[in-house]
Amino acid sequence: MSIERNARRVTLASRPTGLPKADNFALETFSSEAPKAGEVLVKISHFSLDPYMRGRMDDVASYAAPVNLGGVMEAGAIGRVEESASDEVKVGDWVYGRMGWAEAAIIDASLVRKIPASMQPKSLSLGMLGMPGFTGWWGLTQHGRPKAGETLVVGAVTGPVGSMVVQLARRMGLKTIGIAGSEEKCGIAVDKFGVDHCLNHRMFNSAAELQSALKDLAPDGVDIYFENVGGKLFEAVVPEMNEFGRMVVCGMISWYNEGALGADAQTERISVANLWRTILVKKLSVNGFIISDHLSNYSEFVSAVQPLVASGEIQYIEDVVKGIDNAPDAFIGLLQGHNLGKLIVEV
Amino acid sequence: MSIERNARRVTLASRPTGLPKADNFALETFSSEAPKAGEVLVKISHFSLDPYMRGRMDDVASYAAPVNLGGVMEAGAIGRVEESASDEVKVGDWVYGRMGWAEAAIIDASLVRKIPASMQPKSLSLGMLGMPGFTGWWGLTQHGRPKAGETLVVGAVTGPVGSMVVQLARRMGLKTIGIAGSEEKCGIAVDKFGVDHCLNHRMFNSAAELQSALKDLAPDGVDIYFENVGGKLFEAVVPEMNEFGRMVVCGMISWYNEGALGADAQTERISVANLWRTILVKKLSVNGFIISDHLSNYSEFVSAVQPLVASGEIQYIEDVVKGIDNAPDAFIGLLQGHNLGKLIVEV
Repeated sequence: MSIERNARRVTLASRPTGLPKADNFALETFSSEAPKAGEVLVKISHFSLDPYMRGRMDDVASYAAPVNLGGVMEAGAIGRVEESASDEVKVGDWVYGRMGWAEAAIIDASLVRKIPASMQPKSLSLGMLGMPGFTGWWGLTQHGRPKAGETLVVGAVTGPVGSMVVQLARRMGLKTIGIAGSEEKCGIAVDKFGVDHCLNHRMFNSAAELQSALKDLAPDGVDIYFENVGGKLFEAVVPEMNEFGRMVVCGMISWYNEGALGADAQTERISVANLWRTILVKKLSVNGFIISDHLSNYSEFVSAVQPLVASGEIQYIEDVVKGIDNAPDAFIGLLQGHNLGKLIVEV
Repeated sequence: MSIERNARRVTLASRPTGLPKADNFALETFSSEAPKAGEVLVKISHFSLDPYMRGRMDDVASYAAPVNLGGVMEAGAIGRVEESASDEVKVGDWVYGRMGWAEAAIIDASLVRKIPASMQPKSLSLGMLGMPGFTGWWGLTQHGRPKAGETLVVGAVTGPVGSMVVQLARRMGLKTIGIAGSEEKCGIAVDKFGVDHCLNHRMFNSAAELQSALKDLAPDGVDIYFENVGGKLFEAVVPEMNEFGRMVVCGMISWYNEGALGADAQTERISVANLWRTILVKKLSVNGFIISDHLSNYSEFVSAVQPLVASGEIQYIEDVVKGIDNAPDAFIGLLQGHNLGKLIVEV
């Protein structure tokens, strides 16, 4: 069988200001060499699009290096090994690896993870049973410290992180309030993911209005805020936190286009001293985390959660975009909240 | 023996704006009734002055109710029981209780704690072996999670909280950097409390200058920031925090005169989004706490630390002001950093 060595990939053509535009990306065709000793050639079937990738487009110090101009956009991807120069990973194996926005990649076999045959569909290893689901599980259990009867708030609730968080929390006996960007998403959050309440943030012009609606739904306050949004939602929730509440800081997508990975964003009503004072007098725990620090716990997550996904006790939504050439537009839409569920590109 | 029922106490005459002034306080003479069933009459020997009392003078919701206008200023105090209508607490017992800025008080016996005979001097139960020392011990051990070889920064380092924190941390093998408000205090922090370095914050005009000096002393960054100051020190330390660092939020004296218990203070260089982003990408743990939530652990603290204080392994400084009429000026001085060590009024 001859190996097809030509494939396409998406590179960073220029750094965006604010929301990325199509011309910040370039689609190029490349021809890969044969894998060297220890490497494999993978034909990618799907790659993931996630909010954190916006940060990689800025040239700002962060927890990970930025993508270089002309470099391949980063992503977790899955595919079938087509050619192998490794003893560990064989032709025909399905693997997950950080192979980028591409149709094929050469990667060191030590950097991929084999996808078990029991994982069906395989794309679950990019979403609910991949980094996003793992992020929700780790953040909630390690830093949220949920207790039955408490109230949890999370934004982007139909996304893979948010939907994992609320479904786990609901199973633990918490009252769950989701925030999403449309009536349709809120309907799904209630019907499919079982949240007790969902607020469409686009119905509120200010943090004060959103706070007021939240207060009506959670008159006893908020015990856990799983932070993946920032912005208006952050400002609405902070004053509603209960004593000994936990704020799990996982992401802040609403600020990502503001510059400096969100650090340049301004808040309307909350000052640093006000936030700091709230943390003191309410005795809050605030924990930032990045899931890549905890990969040694990934198999524990899969063992705990895969059976629940397989049995349908934990539901998920995949939003599959076909064709690598549609990846930039899909990613720009993701940053505007246009997707529904886990966004995946099928190449 | 006849019981003296006339005594003096300090009340809140008016609420301050910014730094309190002498006329925000009133000194009044009162005559107490005989104690009712379950109560005791205590002749107070010493009471404590602490930064948190500034918050009690504002009519703002906080973790504790404000002092009413005309009400006695709050304080922890110690004294000898002169008259008792309690089976538990006898005449001659020495007790600690929240008896306020006063020469005598009637208090329910269930609300006092007997001071063990082994506590010498008794005033230690207001400072290094009272709430301030307990605050330092609890915050450092529970939320700071110190490890040998790490670097800790604390402000107000010659005060009872700061001096407890640095001496415990030093014993655990940490590098300790203290911040204080004079060269004299810095000398004491080094010579008496054994900090590795001390910076006089009055030598720096901006947070940027202080940060630069801190960077020279801690080129490997800061692992634990014990926050009891806020303001310029906060802004200098945040950017120097290491990954997985811990910020223990105990107080913010430099902001207390800014209104709304400090919540109205402005920062020069750090925005909320910038702080939130730093917590995320550096995976920081931030924990607010109020020591009155943890009184059940007080005896554990005394067991652990009293022997170290008795043997001189942990040092302390008491700054004793004589006469209740000097309490307001001493308190105003405390808020400006004029005291050295634990500030106590001997009545």
